[in-house]
Amino acid sequence: MAASTESEKKQEEETEQVVNPWEVSAKGKIDYDKLIDRFGCQRLDDNLVSRLHRLTSRPPHVFLRRGVFFAHRDFAEILDAYERGDKFYLYTGRGPSSEALHLGHLIPFMFTKYLQEVFKVPLVIQLTDDEKFLWKNLTIEECQRLARENAKDIIACGFDISKTFIFSDISYQCSSFYKNVLEVAKRVTYNQAVGIFGFTGEDHIGKVSFPPVQAVPSFPSSFPHLFSGKENLRCLIPCAIDQDPYFRMTRDVAPRMGYHKPALIESSFFPALQGETGKMSASDPNSAIYVTDSAKDIKNKVNKHAFSGGQDSIEKHRQLGANLEVDIPIKYLTFFLDDDVELEHIKKEYGEGRMLTGEVKQRLIQVLTELVERHRRARASVTEEMVDAFMAIRPLPHMHELLSV
Amino acid sequence: MAASTESEKKQEEETEQVVNPWEVSAKGKIDYDKLIDRFGCQRLDDNLVSRLHRLTSRPPHVFLRRGVFFAHRDFAEILDAYERGDKFYLYTGRGPSSEALHLGHLIPFMFTKYLQEVFKVPLVIQLTDDEKFLWKNLTIEECQRLARENAKDIIACGFDISKTFIFSDISYQCSSFYKNVLEVAKRVTYNQAVGIFGFTGEDHIGKVSFPPVQAVPSFPSSFPHLFSGKENLRCLIPCAIDQDPYFRMTRDVAPRMGYHKPALIESSFFPALQGETGKMSASDPNSAIYVTDSAKDIKNKVNKHAFSGGQDSIEKHRQLGANLEVDIPIKYLTFFLDDDVELEHIKKEYGEGRMLTGEVKQRLIQVLTELVERHRRARASVTEEMVDAFMAIRPLPHMHELLSV
Repeated sequence: MAASTESEKKQEEETEQVVNPWEVSAKGKIDYDKLIDRFGCQRLDDNLVSRLHRLTSRPPHVFLRRGVFFAHRDFAEILDAYERGDKFYLYTGRGPSSEALHLGHLIPFMFTKYLQEVFKVPLVIQLTDDEKFLWKNLTIEECQRLARENAKDIIACGFDISKTFIFSDISYQCSSFYKNVLEVAKRVTYNQAVGIFGFTGEDHIGKVSFPPVQAVPSFPSSFPHLFSGKENLRCLIPCAIDQDPYFRMTRDVAPRMGYHKPALIESSFFPALQGETGKMSASDPNSAIYVTDSAKDIKNKVNKHAFSGGQDSIEKHRQLGANLEVDIPIKYLTFFLDDDVELEHIKKEYGEGRMLTGEVKQRLIQVLTELVERHRRARASVTEEMVDAFMAIRPLPHMHELLSV
Repeated sequence: MAASTESEKKQEEETEQVVNPWEVSAKGKIDYDKLIDRFGCQRLDDNLVSRLHRLTSRPPHVFLRRGVFFAHRDFAEILDAYERGDKFYLYTGRGPSSEALHLGHLIPFMFTKYLQEVFKVPLVIQLTDDEKFLWKNLTIEECQRLARENAKDIIACGFDISKTFIFSDISYQCSSFYKNVLEVAKRVTYNQAVGIFGFTGEDHIGKVSFPPVQAVPSFPSSFPHLFSGKENLRCLIPCAIDQDPYFRMTRDVAPRMGYHKPALIESSFFPALQGETGKMSASDPNSAIYVTDSAKDIKNKVNKHAFSGGQDSIEKHRQLGANLEVDIPIKYLTFFLDDDVELEHIKKEYGEGRMLTGEVKQRLIQVLTELVERHRRARASVTEEMVDAFMAIRPLPHMHELLSV
């Protein structure tokens, strides 16, 4: 009995995974099926992706074709509404805790840019500088500075200024926004917040106060300069799945406030160079490729640190092939190599031992260097005036046409 | 043993009193000495009142001469600073939960007007429409409407518009204010908030989020349009003692944020017509005199409902005199009859049985009718434009002279 209990416990520990907005960790690989079950969202299946293809007359984004965005809530209802001629708006965001973004940080923005393009819809981007002040050992001024720096990287992803409003929680002070914060806060008990977010009595009350602030950009009335008279507009939130707890809470209160539940489309985590046990870590510079890395940095990091599924010796590799399941160069190419045919070719050749790790890494270095170089050029052209323009509280031009198909 | 325990328990129950921002109740009269001990504030003694007299060259307000404002925190330090030539600012407020104010509501404003006059200092008045939305079954719109109506009654108390800024929490949206809310919230744990305010897990998180909002008007940087460059200015808060928990919390965090602890000058509660067991109750219109009551209402309420310390029969009254300790007409005259000589005369004659309850009530009806009539006239002359002007986010004129003696 004792042995069996021990073994059960061990098994539990092995599969134990913590995924919330502040921690992503697992003993092995993250089990996304379990996460879907536990969170209560749905898998984004091929039917939905095909439907998106048909509706937008554009090939689905590589992140959809490859299952990077893999889960959703009510995404079908967004497509239903769109098909009926009702538009919606997009909401995504970032907690500005560090100056240099890594590739994992870019993923929701690259995907959101695609959604904005194919649906031609307005977008709000929340920079939670208040959250970062509350959770990190940073001053308010530093969080505000980081928000502005991060805004430049976000703008560099290519958003359309005529459809995009970027705001910092600390700078965007608006009664309509605060009213919605109050309306949400009044509908969530402390015990419910503990159940969703795991707060303890030793946590400061700033943490308890924050979730409604991340919730309310889901409601059009939080942005009267954008959506006045469009209070019934639906909202779609592209984000990594660790943000799901905020929006579970939001979806719970939305109908009681007279709003549609926001729909979600959720991504898996971009793995660390060292392997797939969680998100990349800002505290270990060798765990991630940063958008500020030089070509030399990228080459060194990939060659030295990218975990390989190849075999120990060339002989063994030719014989057995690489284990693609754990191979980081293959994972990274899955995210960023757009050409389906080439990716399939590499996977086949590498998996069957005809291609070596060094060759795959070589191709990955090319892909990442191009990506980072393109981002660096785009960011260098983002001026302070452009940041001001994206963050200006203003009506978006042609909003009427934007919001009717 | 059992009997003794019972009796001890009964004794405890008899002296049991609950005083917090949302409830004031006691089995008998409120024991203010106990409250001072439990809250850890100081009694406002005659020495301080005399010193105030000397420093301002003005007779102390009747609320000081009669001990209505009876407790303080660091009021001596405010006077020290003033004597050195450093000015300060005043902060008071109101939770706008009802349209008609009763006399108890006016007390802090009447006293604050006196402080503004004698010290010639700026004043901020917070209308916590957000708090009332969070605690009461009211819509946000109704709380905002009540805030504006209450502002008219406050303005009618005679504040100097060149020294007074009135704001609603929902309408005054300002990054500097929110930054201070974040700075306070980060320094108070949930357990501490429970210790101070008695929140439970079933309370919604809006309640937990609110105390920093009431705290931050104590810090000059929350009002950049008023106090830019004066971040070291001291703050004095006149309020009823049930608000003390908010400012105990504020005083705890203030030094860690680089500010002076706000000083407090605190009043006892204005008793209900039925007797001194707590504050007046908005839910029982006969428990209080409202500023909207007609002369006839006042006459009826005082005659019918004001608890008398007189004896049952005239004969007994002539022989024993009135019990002034429980007599409400005497209490009310103590608050509102300015003439010390007359008050002493009434107390002597009534206490020794030569004056009857009916005569004392007659005088009280005169005093209250005049007070209410004066307030009604003043309020009738408050225009919407005046409310806009008091609530406008603007620099106050002559602020430099205001802030240097």
